Amino acid sequence: MAERRAELKKILIIGIGAGNPGHLTLQAVDALNRADAFFIMDKGPTKEKLTAFRKAICERHITGRSYRFIDGASPEWQREHDTADYLATIDKLNQDKEEVFERMIVEGLGDDECGAFLVWGDPPLYDSTIRIVGEIAGKGLIDPDFEVIPGISCIQALTARHRITLNQIGGSVQITTGRRLAQGWPDGVDSVVVMLDAENSYKLYADQDMEIYWGAYVGTPDEIVMSGRLKDVAGRIEQVRAEARRANGWIMDTYLLRRITGGA
Amino acid sequence: MAERRAELKKILIIGIGAGNPGHLTLQAVDALNRADAFFIMDKGPTKEKLTAFRKAICERHITGRSYRFIDGASPEWQREHDTADYLATIDKLNQDKEEVFERMIVEGLGDDECGAFLVWGDPPLYDSTIRIVGEIAGKGLIDPDFEVIPGISCIQALTARHRITLNQIGGSVQITTGRRLAQGWPDGVDSVVVMLDAENSYKLYADQDMEIYWGAYVGTPDEIVMSGRLKDVAGRIEQVRAEARRANGWIMDTYLLRRITGGA
Repeated sequence: MAERRAELKKILIIGIGAGNPGHLTLQAVDALNRADAFFIMDKGPTKEKLTAFRKAICERHITGRSYRFIDGASPEWQREHDTADYLATIDKLNQDKEEVFERMIVEGLGDDECGAFLVWGDPPLYDSTIRIVGEIAGKGLIDPDFEVIPGISCIQALTARHRITLNQIGGSVQITTGRRLAQGWPDGVDSVVVMLDAENSYKLYADQDMEIYWGAYVGTPDEIVMSGRLKDVAGRIEQVRAEARRANGWIMDTYLLRRITGGA
Repeated sequence: MAERRAELKKILIIGIGAGNPGHLTLQAVDALNRADAFFIMDKGPTKEKLTAFRKAICERHITGRSYRFIDGASPEWQREHDTADYLATIDKLNQDKEEVFERMIVEGLGDDECGAFLVWGDPPLYDSTIRIVGEIAGKGLIDPDFEVIPGISCIQALTARHRITLNQIGGSVQITTGRRLAQGWPDGVDSVVVMLDAENSYKLYADQDMEIYWGAYVGTPDEIVMSGRLKDVAGRIEQVRAEARRANGWIMDTYLLRRITGGA
């Protein structure tokens, strides 16, 4: 592959928001209109809806130019619950993913063409596209000036929907994973946003004085939100979450946990 | 004021992004087109630019309807560096601000009208508008169903511009203030985003092995970004920051600090 000169292939990494088509920014709409091809990586139970969403966005907002889709295959996520295995698994997945991305770019995109990844939410947040495209740029296979267009994240969809602030006045916020939350409450923080929690880790804190603001598929027609004192709603959230997951075949949820303190 | 029935006044809190007009979402454009009046609170050295930016957004995106601006006066920020005084000062400022918001809404907005706050960045992030409008809703002075429209935050503008991920793989991220960073590095976190840092608190960590991704006015024509090993660039950032602040009369900057670890 190194023989082929592909330095001028331009890559855009476009955040498309968290499921509400209105999350798209004007900057993202402009970027959509610069791309010749869109890389589609959806796989598994989410594939149908997510791919349809991406295609609908292109259809609605791209005007006066032709474009095509390049269909890759994202390696299946293998959940491993031991930390060492977890990191090893991620490492392997990222390697596989990088190979797929590279093949799609090198073989699917012509010289001087522009290809775009349409990333759910905001690309810098718990997504590997920037990291992988950076690696490919490091190999000289694309224009080094690839671009990242920010998008509304699921955290923003959640806080806007609940009409809550992310931070307490002058306070800190931690964004973390269910895995890490299960290891303990972070020191010195009263607000924690949890992503990628397959294990209902909030339940571990149900004996403490906390509020939870939970949401699944926020901003989409399937949206479900719940909030309240954690001890009062934890059981119900677990139940609703399990039902929604069964009904949809997958779930995408996020929550903010907040310690209830005397003041504020 | 309690005599006047104002239950139907509708309030929208619209995130307008971090300074790039392209950050505006399609949802925000729709929301702009629902408002009869926009509350303008800018004051001090930032007033001219920020007010012009808000007015330009309205002018560009509102079509086929008339609207007006209601000019309030935000209480001047009094920096106090003792924590107790700091919280007391914020408390007083928020009370003053709530009175101004309430007066603008009650006196400036007609019954059944819709008024909008155009919030810089993302409204849930280090901004008091949601909290204050919530208080006013609690008094029954507006339609309780006020809405929050998310916007691209300065953190997102920063990470997109530097083309970096916010989190390390599977890791946590803390969002905090310069004041809190000066009190110590948060436990269990390798990535820290710092906002509202008037004191160049990153310098306190310049003897440690860290990377900094810094940006001021990111997304605007005045944008300045720098990155590198903290020990190599800390002095230069402090200098550039002071110069920019002098030249513009104000500064709006954010940075991501990341520990350099063996792996990843």
